[in-house]
Amino acid sequence: MVATSLSPLAPAGFPDLPAISGVKLHTVTLGIRYKGRPDVLLAELEPGTQVAGVFTTSTTASAAVRWGREALKGGTGRAFFVNAGNSVAFTGKAGEKFVADKVEAAAKALGCDKTEIFTASTGVIGEPTTANRITDALPDLLANDAGWLDAAKAIMTTDTFPKGASATATIHGAKVTIAGFAKGSGMIEPNMATMLGFIFTDAAVPHSVLQALLADCTNRSFNAITVDSDTSTSDTVLLAATGKAGNAAVTGIDDPALAGFKTALEDVMRDLAHQVVRDGEGASKFITVNVTGAISEKEAKITAKAIANSPLVKTAIAGEDANWGRIVMAVGKCGVQADPNKLTVSIGGIVLAKNGERVADYDEAPVAAHIKGQYIDIDVDLGFGDGKATVWTCDLTHGYISINADYRS
Amino acid sequence: MVATSLSPLAPAGFPDLPAISGVKLHTVTLGIRYKGRPDVLLAELEPGTQVAGVFTTSTTASAAVRWGREALKGGTGRAFFVNAGNSVAFTGKAGEKFVADKVEAAAKALGCDKTEIFTASTGVIGEPTTANRITDALPDLLANDAGWLDAAKAIMTTDTFPKGASATATIHGAKVTIAGFAKGSGMIEPNMATMLGFIFTDAAVPHSVLQALLADCTNRSFNAITVDSDTSTSDTVLLAATGKAGNAAVTGIDDPALAGFKTALEDVMRDLAHQVVRDGEGASKFITVNVTGAISEKEAKITAKAIANSPLVKTAIAGEDANWGRIVMAVGKCGVQADPNKLTVSIGGIVLAKNGERVADYDEAPVAAHIKGQYIDIDVDLGFGDGKATVWTCDLTHGYISINADYRS
Repeated sequence: MVATSLSPLAPAGFPDLPAISGVKLHTVTLGIRYKGRPDVLLAELEPGTQVAGVFTTSTTASAAVRWGREALKGGTGRAFFVNAGNSVAFTGKAGEKFVADKVEAAAKALGCDKTEIFTASTGVIGEPTTANRITDALPDLLANDAGWLDAAKAIMTTDTFPKGASATATIHGAKVTIAGFAKGSGMIEPNMATMLGFIFTDAAVPHSVLQALLADCTNRSFNAITVDSDTSTSDTVLLAATGKAGNAAVTGIDDPALAGFKTALEDVMRDLAHQVVRDGEGASKFITVNVTGAISEKEAKITAKAIANSPLVKTAIAGEDANWGRIVMAVGKCGVQADPNKLTVSIGGIVLAKNGERVADYDEAPVAAHIKGQYIDIDVDLGFGDGKATVWTCDLTHGYISINADYRS
Repeated sequence: MVATSLSPLAPAGFPDLPAISGVKLHTVTLGIRYKGRPDVLLAELEPGTQVAGVFTTSTTASAAVRWGREALKGGTGRAFFVNAGNSVAFTGKAGEKFVADKVEAAAKALGCDKTEIFTASTGVIGEPTTANRITDALPDLLANDAGWLDAAKAIMTTDTFPKGASATATIHGAKVTIAGFAKGSGMIEPNMATMLGFIFTDAAVPHSVLQALLADCTNRSFNAITVDSDTSTSDTVLLAATGKAGNAAVTGIDDPALAGFKTALEDVMRDLAHQVVRDGEGASKFITVNVTGAISEKEAKITAKAIANSPLVKTAIAGEDANWGRIVMAVGKCGVQADPNKLTVSIGGIVLAKNGERVADYDEAPVAAHIKGQYIDIDVDLGFGDGKATVWTCDLTHGYISINADYRS
């Protein structure tokens, strides 16, 4: 594996996250693949904790994902049990046994039903292994209370920094807190979730409402980022609500009392999703692609993804070249309703092209200054309707090639 | 622009192409962007030459493509008039005037209808320019008879070698000859055609049949390659049939007399398409992705494209790593009917994974030897139906980043 240095887009440090009543974090350092840092996490949840989850849409999803989909039907959870270094995906019966052994051991240790144990594994695909080292370490794991930073570190693979975020809101006057962490750097075009994300709140929100909230916020956070257009077999985001904040009951996703909570949840999820992009393999620039004027939100997102996934757009930005012609190309190829004569393309807020041609007299100096910065804004208006979407991505650099041409070896 | 050296996958040399009766090639060196080589081509066609064409499906197609679609309705052509260095795409009225001026000047010089002049332009997008230098040079151009090599060079941009191919067949006992050339290296996931391809035959085949043949062969040649998943605004393939071979009339695309011609045409088109991949920007390996067992040909092609476009698969191969887990990932993400337990993945003819897991005892030596070669075969069987498709691509290397992070500057 290539040694990777801290992403130039990394935040100044890991944020100071508040404790969530009803959640206990445990980590242990087994050195399964990554050395000198915890690599197994168990987030212990109070009995009755409501759980929502979104998973990869991959048809070659890992055994952990398939188990998670089943377990979610119960609506409650007692633990998120995660290991880093091996995704145990596409390992047939070995993978199923790996998950079953983890689930059985954790359920026994916590005295709960097996369907209350959610698992996730991240790392190389296709390497069969057993869960023995992990299940043998359960007593040590449960005895070792950990903080958010260690929990966030325990789930990393090629990540160059741990990712965390938090927010607060009120529900029916009661203060509720949300905190979570995520990992991801490559194989990132989540399609229901990022590689792995775990979010906790003390709010009292029933499973069905929690699930609807999570799915909705996912569309504008984890499902709105892409690093390399590749979708993992293990993408999982879990959200646990312990209810310890003691807020009065909410009636459904449209309950006005939930408005602030929903905003806070989306803020946390978007923050985590942005951190995944900021840790995109080889990333040197964070790119916001904002598409408006599409005939639908769906077409706006298809367009934004086409731009964000275009290797030619991403390499142009890596080269600090405001090559808007490649943006036009990406719009044109993606099959949405578009017309050159209605298209407006801006970089850094400066309109470079409209009405089917270059703006002859645009001021190049601010565009040149913008493109040399770390945060690049691309705005495209298709000129048709009200559909809009924002997608976040990073540039495509030599670093991506170096990391991925030598990952498994 | 980055100076690029000859692709390691380049053929030994430009092939010896036979003359096609009824076709005269002309080139001129204007140095519009590329120096020391011809950069304008006019392929002059005998009156009555039948023309077929396929064009980019991009909704931001260039003015030349839009003109070509119109001109094709007439079914006959007197010239293919091409310039390299500026695609004149997305240049609004300037682009339309550029095409109109080229067409008008060529029609006047050849004494034909404007709808018999097909044009193409390739190069940077969005730089408005006039056709004056090109139309002023028409007398020089028409006076300068050129060979296939100069014609193939005249249409290159970032290509590192000129691309040509030929074949012969018989129709109703008459020998017919096909020869053509193409260009393309980046912005290559053609969707109806490659960047530019021009094919000529002396066969007598009426426009409607020629068009059907071209569209069908395109699906298994130019539309079955990808370099970087980006679709150009200028993709154009034109096929001219002068009729000079004097073969007896053919009745339609299913006429058995056309079988040999169709095979020969597909051979030429596939050869040219392969040469585009072999000149893929930064390419060090030529990859054949063969998918079988899909529920339809369409799903097989979607799967093959997903593998061929995956940056993680392409970088693994660049790194000479038989990382079949990334192939499984690409199959899983693309939305086709797939089941890990039915999937078989082979590299270099060796089965690495089947029945949902790694083949424990596969022989690593021949796989390691294969992956170090220049020609990589990936075979995936989905285990469902009879749908199959083959897609050709290249690996993703530092060379691609170097070329594209500094193309326009």
